[in-house]
Amino acid sequence: MQDIEFTIQDGKLWMLQCRVGKRTGLAALNMAMDMLHEGLIDEKTAVMRVAPNQLDELLHPILDPKAEKGAQVIAQGLPAGPGGAVGKIVFTAEDAVEAAAKGEKVILVREETNPEDVEGMRAADGLLTARGGMTSHAALVARGWGKCCIVGCDAVQLKTVDEKRVLVINGKTYNEGDVFSLNGSKGWVYDVAVKTMDASENPRFVEYMQIVDKYRKLGVRTNAENPQDAQQAINFGAEGIGLFRIEHMFYGANSEAPLSKLRKMILSKNTEERKVALNELMPYVIDVTKGTMKVMDGKSVTFRLLDPPLHEFVPQGEEKQKELAEELGITVDAVQKRGESLHEVNPMMGHRGVRLGISYPEVSEMQFRAIFTATAQLIKEGLDPRPEIMIPVTISVSELDFQKKILDRVHAEVEAAEGVKINYLYGTMIEIPRAAILADKMAETAQFFSFGTNDLTQMTYGFSRDDIGSFMPDYLNNKIIPNDPFQTLDVTSVGHLIEIGVKGGRSTNPNLKVGICGEHGGDPASVEFCHLIGMNYVSCSPFRVPIARLAAAQAAIKYDK
Amino acid sequence: MQDIEFTIQDGKLWMLQCRVGKRTGLAALNMAMDMLHEGLIDEKTAVMRVAPNQLDELLHPILDPKAEKGAQVIAQGLPAGPGGAVGKIVFTAEDAVEAAAKGEKVILVREETNPEDVEGMRAADGLLTARGGMTSHAALVARGWGKCCIVGCDAVQLKTVDEKRVLVINGKTYNEGDVFSLNGSKGWVYDVAVKTMDASENPRFVEYMQIVDKYRKLGVRTNAENPQDAQQAINFGAEGIGLFRIEHMFYGANSEAPLSKLRKMILSKNTEERKVALNELMPYVIDVTKGTMKVMDGKSVTFRLLDPPLHEFVPQGEEKQKELAEELGITVDAVQKRGESLHEVNPMMGHRGVRLGISYPEVSEMQFRAIFTATAQLIKEGLDPRPEIMIPVTISVSELDFQKKILDRVHAEVEAAEGVKINYLYGTMIEIPRAAILADKMAETAQFFSFGTNDLTQMTYGFSRDDIGSFMPDYLNNKIIPNDPFQTLDVTSVGHLIEIGVKGGRSTNPNLKVGICGEHGGDPASVEFCHLIGMNYVSCSPFRVPIARLAAAQAAIKYDK
Repeated sequence: MQDIEFTIQDGKLWMLQCRVGKRTGLAALNMAMDMLHEGLIDEKTAVMRVAPNQLDELLHPILDPKAEKGAQVIAQGLPAGPGGAVGKIVFTAEDAVEAAAKGEKVILVREETNPEDVEGMRAADGLLTARGGMTSHAALVARGWGKCCIVGCDAVQLKTVDEKRVLVINGKTYNEGDVFSLNGSKGWVYDVAVKTMDASENPRFVEYMQIVDKYRKLGVRTNAENPQDAQQAINFGAEGIGLFRIEHMFYGANSEAPLSKLRKMILSKNTEERKVALNELMPYVIDVTKGTMKVMDGKSVTFRLLDPPLHEFVPQGEEKQKELAEELGITVDAVQKRGESLHEVNPMMGHRGVRLGISYPEVSEMQFRAIFTATAQLIKEGLDPRPEIMIPVTISVSELDFQKKILDRVHAEVEAAEGVKINYLYGTMIEIPRAAILADKMAETAQFFSFGTNDLTQMTYGFSRDDIGSFMPDYLNNKIIPNDPFQTLDVTSVGHLIEIGVKGGRSTNPNLKVGICGEHGGDPASVEFCHLIGMNYVSCSPFRVPIARLAAAQAAIKYDK
Repeated sequence: MQDIEFTIQDGKLWMLQCRVGKRTGLAALNMAMDMLHEGLIDEKTAVMRVAPNQLDELLHPILDPKAEKGAQVIAQGLPAGPGGAVGKIVFTAEDAVEAAAKGEKVILVREETNPEDVEGMRAADGLLTARGGMTSHAALVARGWGKCCIVGCDAVQLKTVDEKRVLVINGKTYNEGDVFSLNGSKGWVYDVAVKTMDASENPRFVEYMQIVDKYRKLGVRTNAENPQDAQQAINFGAEGIGLFRIEHMFYGANSEAPLSKLRKMILSKNTEERKVALNELMPYVIDVTKGTMKVMDGKSVTFRLLDPPLHEFVPQGEEKQKELAEELGITVDAVQKRGESLHEVNPMMGHRGVRLGISYPEVSEMQFRAIFTATAQLIKEGLDPRPEIMIPVTISVSELDFQKKILDRVHAEVEAAEGVKINYLYGTMIEIPRAAILADKMAETAQFFSFGTNDLTQMTYGFSRDDIGSFMPDYLNNKIIPNDPFQTLDVTSVGHLIEIGVKGGRSTNPNLKVGICGEHGGDPASVEFCHLIGMNYVSCSPFRVPIARLAAAQAAIKYDK
């Protein structure tokens, strides 16, 4: 599609300028599908017509067309940002940020927006402005983010009544907190909550993705640690979990109780104390791993053992330390001392990953036992769980062998106790340069590799992800490097190590399954690279799954003749 | 040489056991030279007869034989540890430690030693015991360290007189603090200070090293940052400086004044303030670089630009912070805040090395100007300075090009101002995996590479040198890795990257000079590897120079047929 400027002078047509026409993801999808159905293009061409990253806009909910029919449109504006949004109305950027922080969905209503509103716009689910056109600030920002937005809605009047800001539409007054729904693709405003639907239910998107999958050769999995994310990813077409980070079950809501047990384990004085704490922790680990494998029934779930340095879990605040001290029956001072003793100068290259499992084999043992027990229980419930156990931060096959001995014993014990046969795969992250270089050895024990390109990029560049803020802008501004290598895989260096790793691994283990997890798994350029070097799958966050699927299909069409 | 156990039974000779005979470095050297002079072995064989690490024992001083002739031996014991020692006598391990901490040279005199004395034995320059034989505790420990030691000296009597410990020899009483000299190779004790001489003056050692150098192909340089170390290294045969770490001039004695100027530079609020501080700092940098290049007249000196993260130089103690605040005319709070803002999660992979020179080009500029000015001054004094400028922590040739532009300008300015032509080489450390992988590009600008195997090992293993203490013992005990890779270069992984680097670099720049700096440069096994992959030189600390020379000669004899 081309944007063309022309003029006619003295009966002559002058073409002044032409460039590729900008369009939203939805428009690109619609154009491709229309042209396909009209027989103008073939399926492969249709697959190539949508840029993978544009799908992002489509992955957010839309108003359910059936539900919309039962609701009354109270105002109409310009459809500046696609998709649907439902939430409480707020009138300032600050209120939007505050409400979002509480987990509330809000729609930010403004006369018009300016750069100072950006944080509030980001926090809001939808934007509604009284003024401005399709190229106003609100419209540009919203489209950039693929956010639902209606601008130039003349009916909107913002007033102050009794020192309180209110919204008046056609004589009716609405207060902060009233629920509105927006259809950003049509510009329609509702003063009720209209049911939304996921993009995965959008028939046009579903049809397009079915065509995409016909051409894709690379598998696409997701990174997920709970049943909700796992289900979301399945809806988006994930074929399994490529990265289940055990430590994630100790973050976020409802994790306080298990986190305190984990802390107890970390602060144990000796192996015996540690084993007691691990035993208390195990039921929770069984529970969470089981819940996710249940949703992923019949699909592989790759569990990565506890990875971060333990000090990350030691409470920092005095109050938390006091709580922990009381629970453990030790002094606050002892809690602090133990925390300090875990301090590291460069934790990213410190006591973490499999290094914990070498120093404290009982920590690995508990995780193996929990995963196998969860698996056995699901088998007995008639399901088909497919666990894969992945060892992180390895540098040598000896580490894999060391952990495997523990795993073999625990596996036999759980099989005997539960009375079922448990199948699994055993593999490793390849995220340290040495592991990539010695991949031929690693693959003598590992049944699969998953390239952890975040860490691999850190080590290959000597760039600490947490610290690049101080120099990355200088590097990009001076064009020292073309991209942030944490966003787009650097094929020349990190990619070179991956290639050594894939070739090395398959040289000693031709059946080796190879994948990638980490941010790059959802980056289209990186997915293309993964296709080219013959990986089996990529794994990315749930909302990137369709993007990875499309990128993989495009790579296959582009390169496989 | 063999240690043989045999017995004769019923007129029959039984060989019970044989093994390679243990001998001191001095004995090995003497045997090799005796056999060479007697025509029993040839030069190459003589070179192979001494283990490089054994030279360590020989590099410490001996009593000057001429001076010994003028002194009276007051007692004789068993020559348990070779070399010479002169110092004040002390009677307990604690006193030895205390005196050594003050920088005093001491001789620890004991009835006999036991494991509790070990710290004191380490701190002392020489050991003298009244009892014990050649396999006593003192003798074993001293030989292990190559430390001067005399045991079983019957004349020694330790007594308590007037509640004070004293030493009585042949009726004469000596008090703590009296000066003794020991000849550990003969077992002779003197009650006066006898002049010592360096091993480099020992004629036998000198002759041996001349033979060694005939067969050596690899150059040997040293790591040094001041005239004293540089001179010491030259005495030991160093052919240049492979690593002059600019930041070392801010450590240790007499560096308080320049360090405070460096701190002022670091805490500058903007480029202008920073330039003022840099200008104040420059005379000192000129002075130190000039002093060392003067000693190294006619030999190359590789200057590595400021490498560590800046926060390392921010004072931690409150008193120092107060001093700095006063000098800068800002509040202590501001000093602390600026220090905190420089804090990094993983400083080893943070804002350091060339990254500082990209963010603050004026910091590189000052260093270039100081080095070129020092060079120009020496040229005008009729000397032959040979500076090499080395950029650390690089990941891309763009960094080298960026810095080179600044360097070219400064070079022209200094040449114009000083009126002399200044020759130099421009090169880079290869210490981050990406630099090794992209060495072909790096060598398009770099005239030399120096492999920084400390950092390269850190990144290749993902092992923070500061943090391995928590898991390295578990790794070695469980035989996960055969050696500490910071002591012996891991040929399979780090070595693989070095090989990629050397080949890549020479593919685009056949004249590329390649060396290694860092601990491995003085490790015999690593030196052998450097010879095998065709490096031009190794660089190590002054006391390791003869060891590297011998290791290099042995590698040439072993592999070059």
